[in-house]
Amino acid sequence: MAIRTIFWDNDAVVMIDQKALPNEERYVTCCNYGEVIRAIKDLTIRGAPAIGVAAAMGVALGMLHLETTSRDEFARTFYHICKNFAATRPTARNLFWALERMERCFADANPSDLEAVKKALVDEAVRICEEDIAVNRLIGMNGRSLIGDGASILTHCNAGALATAGYGTALGVIRAACEEGKQVHVFVDETRPVLQGARLTAWELMKENIPATLIADGMAGFLMKQGKIDLVIVGADRIASNGDTANKIGTYSVAVLAHHHGIPFYVAAPLSTFDFSIPDGNHIPVEERAAEEVTHLWGQAVAPFGAPALNLAFDVTPNDLIAGIVTEKGIMEPPYTSCLKPYRPA
Amino acid sequence: MAIRTIFWDNDAVVMIDQKALPNEERYVTCCNYGEVIRAIKDLTIRGAPAIGVAAAMGVALGMLHLETTSRDEFARTFYHICKNFAATRPTARNLFWALERMERCFADANPSDLEAVKKALVDEAVRICEEDIAVNRLIGMNGRSLIGDGASILTHCNAGALATAGYGTALGVIRAACEEGKQVHVFVDETRPVLQGARLTAWELMKENIPATLIADGMAGFLMKQGKIDLVIVGADRIASNGDTANKIGTYSVAVLAHHHGIPFYVAAPLSTFDFSIPDGNHIPVEERAAEEVTHLWGQAVAPFGAPALNLAFDVTPNDLIAGIVTEKGIMEPPYTSCLKPYRPA
Repeated sequence: MAIRTIFWDNDAVVMIDQKALPNEERYVTCCNYGEVIRAIKDLTIRGAPAIGVAAAMGVALGMLHLETTSRDEFARTFYHICKNFAATRPTARNLFWALERMERCFADANPSDLEAVKKALVDEAVRICEEDIAVNRLIGMNGRSLIGDGASILTHCNAGALATAGYGTALGVIRAACEEGKQVHVFVDETRPVLQGARLTAWELMKENIPATLIADGMAGFLMKQGKIDLVIVGADRIASNGDTANKIGTYSVAVLAHHHGIPFYVAAPLSTFDFSIPDGNHIPVEERAAEEVTHLWGQAVAPFGAPALNLAFDVTPNDLIAGIVTEKGIMEPPYTSCLKPYRPA
Repeated sequence: MAIRTIFWDNDAVVMIDQKALPNEERYVTCCNYGEVIRAIKDLTIRGAPAIGVAAAMGVALGMLHLETTSRDEFARTFYHICKNFAATRPTARNLFWALERMERCFADANPSDLEAVKKALVDEAVRICEEDIAVNRLIGMNGRSLIGDGASILTHCNAGALATAGYGTALGVIRAACEEGKQVHVFVDETRPVLQGARLTAWELMKENIPATLIADGMAGFLMKQGKIDLVIVGADRIASNGDTANKIGTYSVAVLAHHHGIPFYVAAPLSTFDFSIPDGNHIPVEERAAEEVTHLWGQAVAPFGAPALNLAFDVTPNDLIAGIVTEKGIMEPPYTSCLKPYRPA
């Protein structure tokens, strides 16, 4: 059965609790928008496209439960909620993209019928969710040719069903190759500090019987040197106009290592991850998270008491290290500025 | 107070329990050689030079407590114990180097006086321990010129007092620079899977008030890209005749990343780490350890039940990525085969 990351159910937002995985497969129900905000902040839900869906549904949820007949209060609350969601996490472009879609939906709705506006917002959020799965299937179809039969693939973090509404971006490409009947083997970077690779990607791949081997992040380079990796494919949190790509911390190191070994490094992401308002990766805000994610693991200290630690959650891989970006519109290849041109908003 | 990693005390071998660090600073006393073997295997003591000292003391301990008047049984037991120590861990050269020293000591002793042989073996083991500290101080003195005032240094794993009899190799160089009055800042790779960086290096540096910041291994590349690392210095477990260097898994990735960013990458190690019997790193046996070190952390699963994992404990960095090897005889620079020639055994 396909993994359901997030869905709208009975006027509430239901999501799989990614903090509990892989030890427990449990769903949490958010009955108000504040609970969705907390879920984004505390990584109950994570992954750029999934965060976008959660924000859209969270906004819809907040408005749905608003009891007012004042159009002014309704509008004020809408923008207040959007602002709160925009402040949850800074790096994933899809969050802002989804909020912009909700804002357009709000602007297009008939303000004299607030119940109709509420319905339009809920419909739009559900549409964003459904579209994301469809887009990921297209990404998979477009990217599967990159994966040869028998390929050994390295991935970092989780760009799977759990990072999206379903199917996944980087793991979607791998899934699509497997659905074609190709044999693959996936090496999974555990992806410290939050271990999305160990906890989520390994779980997804095991669930679908895709052969996978978990490794510590420091092992990837030596496996490449030994000729054990044919290609790398990862997801993205934000891609600048020139193809510079922000993704989970450690991705840049993997890209440099792949480059050093002549191994192609691919990114898979929907167009909603692209930020055409910025020329390059220097303009991508990189989230810094609590040091405790490095110094502790599930409440247990792994470092001396009081040890200073740095916790950059993302890094930026320059376009010249990226062999191609798989999108729902096809595989973008360097130079990215020109091949992306048709997809820039006017 | 200086950290005491291992010492001979009252006809027993005492060592700090590195599995308990940093949460608890406790010493374990090994009263027979089997306990020393277990301590090496289960990482109570680790670090190539420290393993060498532990093996030497373990052999001495085993012989000291042997009650026999038979020269044959004495010799048979000696070689049996040496063989058991040689089988504890495969990669660290210092283990075999120390056993060879004990074997030479045994061969040189007067076999007609077994008590005198016992004393000679204990003396030799204690000498190996004391020499190691002295050698590390020389390494520090020789290497400190590599570290500029205000330098930002990256290190991987633990090549400190805890990895040796005391003072350390890579951390010895950093200590020596600090003792000269230089200000430094050390970025410490946590070094998954066993977290020697987080647990041991961060602990050592905090204990001596050397400014340090702990990072996840995947952060090193991005810090280099941001210009935040001036040099890298690490220890070694075995160095081939041509300078190819085995060290803790992840070191090779750090070396490639340093190379990509034009950052000098140094190794600090005593001559006892060199294996002149092998021409290059392809001949270094790389230990593979239990998958549980990757899938679990202190007994707690961090991956799905049954997830396959690979746990290579070391990797090999080719000589062309190494700017210099700091030894007690000075800084060796490429081409290593020629500069190392004077130190090859005849």
